[in-house]
Amino acid sequence: MNVLPETLTPAEVAAQEALYGPFTQHVRELVDAVIRTEVDDEVVREIDEQVQKLTARLRERQIDGAFGIRHDGETMTRPWGNAVIGLRNALAPPLEVVREDGREDGRCWAEFELGAAYEGPPGLVHGGVTAMLLDHVLGQVAGNRGKPRMTASLTLRYLRPTPLGPLRIEGRVERVEGYKTFAVGHIRDAEGPTVEASGVFVLPRGLRDEDSGP
Amino acid sequence: MNVLPETLTPAEVAAQEALYGPFTQHVRELVDAVIRTEVDDEVVREIDEQVQKLTARLRERQIDGAFGIRHDGETMTRPWGNAVIGLRNALAPPLEVVREDGREDGRCWAEFELGAAYEGPPGLVHGGVTAMLLDHVLGQVAGNRGKPRMTASLTLRYLRPTPLGPLRIEGRVERVEGYKTFAVGHIRDAEGPTVEASGVFVLPRGLRDEDSGP
Repeated sequence: MNVLPETLTPAEVAAQEALYGPFTQHVRELVDAVIRTEVDDEVVREIDEQVQKLTARLRERQIDGAFGIRHDGETMTRPWGNAVIGLRNALAPPLEVVREDGREDGRCWAEFELGAAYEGPPGLVHGGVTAMLLDHVLGQVAGNRGKPRMTASLTLRYLRPTPLGPLRIEGRVERVEGYKTFAVGHIRDAEGPTVEASGVFVLPRGLRDEDSGP
Repeated sequence: MNVLPETLTPAEVAAQEALYGPFTQHVRELVDAVIRTEVDDEVVREIDEQVQKLTARLRERQIDGAFGIRHDGETMTRPWGNAVIGLRNALAPPLEVVREDGREDGRCWAEFELGAAYEGPPGLVHGGVTAMLLDHVLGQVAGNRGKPRMTASLTLRYLRPTPLGPLRIEGRVERVEGYKTFAVGHIRDAEGPTVEASGVFVLPRGLRDEDSGP
């Protein structure tokens, strides 16, 4: 049996990463190929049938509903279904967010590449995709001190179009007021920032009583 | 040969929709199953190999780069790779945006369902996903008068968590000032709105000289 327990050992985490990291990447490549292929309709129909068979095999045993979070018994959570960073989510680019140690402002960054599946206007990243990634990184920055933060508000300023290809995202905490954390960040290409964001992130109500501070 | 011309006839559009609509939906189901499966590691490895073979077949002939847009010779564009509405994009939910006829405010709406691949906090839609969808619908509302609009700024207010499941999105034009269109909208579940958005959308610079009006 391969049913994942709620709490994983480091060895279980490593095994899951070794298995699902490449698998999910290969499904991302399939998603890309579905958009870009020019093979004959007949071949598409054949592949369609094969895809349905593979899905049926995967569904022979599956969890009810969404993935949620698994824990590793330490401080890290494992949101492997997450739409932006999920190890097992082919929709996620995925971002691998790096946290800079020893900084008061919780600065985080990630370098990543967006291909055909993230397109909006021709050759450009969909403006909504940049919004999605900035929401995630600013939320992660705001939650850096160990408690989750929910987005209360987020404002995006689009400076110029974001090209498909290699990009960098950064975020940091600007200030903290009680249970509100103010975070800022941007996405940039080789020429400089393309989208700037600022957001307010709040400690969920259930966690405020015990500690309203940062 | 199946190479798509830049401009498609209505029959070609219908044929592509009949082929790629179901195919892409089946790839979406595969993406969902990769997140939720609990089959043995050995089965995952087998399926991983199969996926790579299918991708290789699709890539035997493919376009360079992203999909861009095809036209149908009338007013509709066919952004089949689009991250939010693309017929051939398994990352897109996809939204099927309905435009209400005869309204000055260009009101649009869509009903859709978000599953495991759109998760942020456990059981909830990723806040960035709701931002992405609202950016798209408000941009479409703003562009309703036939010229494309680019997002200049977008502000999101998160009223409460958005549950995974059936949802509705709406948008409308609030006002137009020269080449700027102000649009507002929200996402709601059965209980009411969960996220509100307002945005400023602008006519791309290249199109302003000939007509700066709405």
